[in-house]
Amino acid sequence: MNRPIGIFDSGVGGLTVFREVVNHLPHEDLIYFGDTARLPYGSKSPEAIIRYSLECATFLLEQNIKLLIVACHTASAHALEILQEKLPIPVIGVIQPGFELLMQSTRSQRIAILGTESTIASGVYQNLIRQHYPMASIFAVPCPLFVPLAEERFFDHAAADLIAAHYLDPLKEANIDAALLACTHYPLLKRSIHKALGPSVKILESAFTCAEQAQAVLCLNHTLNPQEIKPAYRFYATDHPIRFSTLAKTFLGYEIHLTLIELEKNKKV
Amino acid sequence: MNRPIGIFDSGVGGLTVFREVVNHLPHEDLIYFGDTARLPYGSKSPEAIIRYSLECATFLLEQNIKLLIVACHTASAHALEILQEKLPIPVIGVIQPGFELLMQSTRSQRIAILGTESTIASGVYQNLIRQHYPMASIFAVPCPLFVPLAEERFFDHAAADLIAAHYLDPLKEANIDAALLACTHYPLLKRSIHKALGPSVKILESAFTCAEQAQAVLCLNHTLNPQEIKPAYRFYATDHPIRFSTLAKTFLGYEIHLTLIELEKNKKV
Repeated sequence: MNRPIGIFDSGVGGLTVFREVVNHLPHEDLIYFGDTARLPYGSKSPEAIIRYSLECATFLLEQNIKLLIVACHTASAHALEILQEKLPIPVIGVIQPGFELLMQSTRSQRIAILGTESTIASGVYQNLIRQHYPMASIFAVPCPLFVPLAEERFFDHAAADLIAAHYLDPLKEANIDAALLACTHYPLLKRSIHKALGPSVKILESAFTCAEQAQAVLCLNHTLNPQEIKPAYRFYATDHPIRFSTLAKTFLGYEIHLTLIELEKNKKV
Repeated sequence: MNRPIGIFDSGVGGLTVFREVVNHLPHEDLIYFGDTARLPYGSKSPEAIIRYSLECATFLLEQNIKLLIVACHTASAHALEILQEKLPIPVIGVIQPGFELLMQSTRSQRIAILGTESTIASGVYQNLIRQHYPMASIFAVPCPLFVPLAEERFFDHAAADLIAAHYLDPLKEANIDAALLACTHYPLLKRSIHKALGPSVKILESAFTCAEQAQAVLCLNHTLNPQEIKPAYRFYATDHPIRFSTLAKTFLGYEIHLTLIELEKNKKV
């Protein structure tokens, strides 16, 4: 009941999910884990992503978590089922919440998914949508430069506008009415994405819906913390890039204390 | 004598060095190793870079190489001395050749070093220059977006020009006459860098000088291959990102066959 919730991501982007979980579950202890030594996941192979995800999950299990949230879209796309199969606790990802939000928001069922190369290539969103909405028109666009642009804080820069236009201009003729930001970093570039897509397209993020799902899972399993405690938040990373702290402040609005750990020393699930 | 030369890099960028080594030493077998599962090195900590470099070197030693070339500037900056100390074969990096080329090319001793965050923060070029040319004015500029831009093939794009201008415009008042591209990816963005720096600044790469040094080391140690063989080239990587093959073709002009290996299974030096 008073065990912590674990959240992992390849880096700092999952803090968008962390923030929403804090808002939805203000009395739960949280452990955030960023696999910064091996980021980005988005350009790696499915095999590597699965191996890394299992190692991250093992570390968090050792911290006695009661629920695992896979905040990384790439890891959710490739490793969620394996984690759900292997772990003795509930595991939720960001794909299902993102999918639900997107399909609730579209009227025309002409929709776009923007994500990393790996997320898009996995076809996970496309398959989920086709399964439930066979008539939907899906435009899936990999935008590999968005993560480095966000990490470099090019939030409102002409170069970000040009790169967004480069990736998204082909969508103009697609006549979509909603686009899902299927990567935790992309909300930081929302302004450039908005300019490229035009005012008639709703731009959606899965962090809010993912936190709602976490709340529902704990409630259903009767594992919500019954005490109204002041929660403890712990942050771990596998490497300490110079920019982690700066970026954490951008995502959360306050400084965090980061503990560095070496994953290779931990055994696999 | 007929043992291969090993070249390692965090990814595909070291193929610029591979190409020059092929030109300078056309009868030597070469093994290229890209640690693509953990790239980029440029934003990781010195400890992580040293650990990864030792693992890459161990793999290449097991292939019985006679010389190791560290084609990655970030790894050269942080791990070269440790590799030279621990390995039973000669090890050369890209720092010393780049430094020599830069100092031969400048007249005013007002110079710029463009590199990854980690290479610039290491101070390795700055220290080397100050030691030998205490009067030199050094402008060291981290350009973190250049690697992803090059990997995304934004070679001649307005966004690359804007990003180059963002990083390099502050140099305009510095009145430099030479700039070293202290990262193997940066030559792919030479046009944008050239536009940003202006026509009076010489733009230098260390790959050519590095290959010259490899030739000199083998010659001095009498370990050049005495037979005029048709050489064998082998390519290994720790992960197979979708873009590796495309990029390899961009760097080399021909297709390569890539063998995937898992480093974690190899023991450390």
